Amino acid sequence: MYSVEELQKIVNTEIKNRAEELKGINPADLYAPIKYSLEIGGKRLRPILLLLSYNLFSNEIEKAIPSAIAIEVFHNFTLLHDDIMDKAEVRRNQPTVHEKFDENSAILSGDAMAFLAYKFLLESKTSQLVDVIDLFSKTAIEVCEGQQYDMDFENRLDVTELEYLEMIRLKTAVLLACSLKAGALLANASGETGDLLYEYGINLGLAFQLQDDLLDSFGDQKTFGKRIGGDILSNKKTYLLINALENATPKVKDELLNWIEKTEFIPENKIKAVKKIYTQLNIKELTQKKVDYYFQKSTQILQKLPIAENKLQPLFVLGNQILKREN
Amino acid sequence: MYSVEELQKIVNTEIKNRAEELKGINPADLYAPIKYSLEIGGKRLRPILLLLSYNLFSNEIEKAIPSAIAIEVFHNFTLLHDDIMDKAEVRRNQPTVHEKFDENSAILSGDAMAFLAYKFLLESKTSQLVDVIDLFSKTAIEVCEGQQYDMDFENRLDVTELEYLEMIRLKTAVLLACSLKAGALLANASGETGDLLYEYGINLGLAFQLQDDLLDSFGDQKTFGKRIGGDILSNKKTYLLINALENATPKVKDELLNWIEKTEFIPENKIKAVKKIYTQLNIKELTQKKVDYYFQKSTQILQKLPIAENKLQPLFVLGNQILKREN
Repeated sequence: MYSVEELQKIVNTEIKNRAEELKGINPADLYAPIKYSLEIGGKRLRPILLLLSYNLFSNEIEKAIPSAIAIEVFHNFTLLHDDIMDKAEVRRNQPTVHEKFDENSAILSGDAMAFLAYKFLLESKTSQLVDVIDLFSKTAIEVCEGQQYDMDFENRLDVTELEYLEMIRLKTAVLLACSLKAGALLANASGETGDLLYEYGINLGLAFQLQDDLLDSFGDQKTFGKRIGGDILSNKKTYLLINALENATPKVKDELLNWIEKTEFIPENKIKAVKKIYTQLNIKELTQKKVDYYFQKSTQILQKLPIAENKLQPLFVLGNQILKREN
Repeated sequence: MYSVEELQKIVNTEIKNRAEELKGINPADLYAPIKYSLEIGGKRLRPILLLLSYNLFSNEIEKAIPSAIAIEVFHNFTLLHDDIMDKAEVRRNQPTVHEKFDENSAILSGDAMAFLAYKFLLESKTSQLVDVIDLFSKTAIEVCEGQQYDMDFENRLDVTELEYLEMIRLKTAVLLACSLKAGALLANASGETGDLLYEYGINLGLAFQLQDDLLDSFGDQKTFGKRIGGDILSNKKTYLLINALENATPKVKDELLNWIEKTEFIPENKIKAVKKIYTQLNIKELTQKKVDYYFQKSTQILQKLPIAENKLQPLFVLGNQILKREN
């Protein structure tokens, strides 16, 4: 059985090698942005989840590595295109691909990454390959749907909590769930087990995204990696803002809407003012409660699996790690 | 055996139905551009080639229809993204997707189409499905490579004929070849037959693209669908321009370079002047000769197939149709 740390090392080495292989390939302008994007780093959460899941049923993880890399390549493809759409200039403290290269590069190299993901998936010679490709393709479409909802929400002030949860399910959670289920499929686990792992991934993903929303406003600049308050500055319809708009008194709501509509302001002032409103309305505690709810639900689902508790340990470790509950 | 006309009708009906199905799906802003793109029309050359190829070996073409549609959806995805990169405003006499909707829509709906193509491919329940997906994914990567070379050529004046032919092989020919080979794979034809059909597609595709270059400068406005002279105005490194630069006397080459570098000019004057140079240099005849060369080569390859001549008739008909040699 592999530990999370061991799998992290394996994934990092494999991605490093795959990125290195792209160096000699022409046209260089197509492959350089792909290499850059893969080498920037990241938590590699999705490939590790796939391998952890696979490792519940089989120790021959070499067989699952290409699929694990495929999902990371797909994830990075979505970042390239999302960053164009969101006009994001920085990702993981580095210039985004469309800033470092140009927008056409980010579009086209992103496209190539989507197909490269399939190429890597196809390296896994397994009897369940078609099922994995089917799951992956459906998931990819859902991720596009999630991004569309996220963009739609930009022009709305009446997004409901339910709509928001469905958006993050599509944009974030289904890919974690797909990684876990793909691991099970590749290891020939039963359909029921695969479905439980999928549900686990959905709940873990919801907790993960809600916590990301929370950290974007209340996190520690040093460990968060992005600028604190970015969501507030861009009026992103996060769980925090949606609930603040919902729970505020008319007076406080007006104040909040006023900040949302303002086009000229000192960034620090807006962040400070909106966070003050969040604090008045107990939004931090409300969001934390929701994170806890989905995290606990994910843990309960894991315990339903017909798998010995000790084998599940690495998944618990990873869940605690990504939700920063390391004790 | 189906005629080209019958298959055209089948493909058009199927695409119409698939586009109609997208109407009710949410998020509407993701699916509306896809529906628009599919309904704009086009020659549907690739799905028809797939079905013609399949029909050489089997009459149950229903089984191959989802794959045929998949390739058309993929082709339209490339148009959405290429049109952003090329800043094209019109396609098939209609506004391009990024003009009709916006650029983010063209990026994201394009992405969804790429995955929708796989979803449709996966509808073909056949023992060769993995091979078809493998061929399709490799082809998709090659098409991205072709587009990258095409963009690279924009900033160069020293593109060679060989480089150009490799670019159009990747950008255009491999997808025709893939359609033909996929038809053979889906019908369980032998590997050798599939490879011959692939080679046929490459040569047909090269002839097709070279003729497109020719028509862009010397075609008839009424039947061409695009504005005559567009390639000349944008200094596109076509077979015509590359050979004109290669064959011109120093004086004529200077004149041509002068037109290429000019930033202010009356469009009609530039088109007229460049076409005059092409005519002086016999570029029209030279290109036509190259079209004929690849078309004849494609015909020779078809004749090598272990298939009765009468069964090949629809492929000959289509080849003549797309190369406008209807007698």
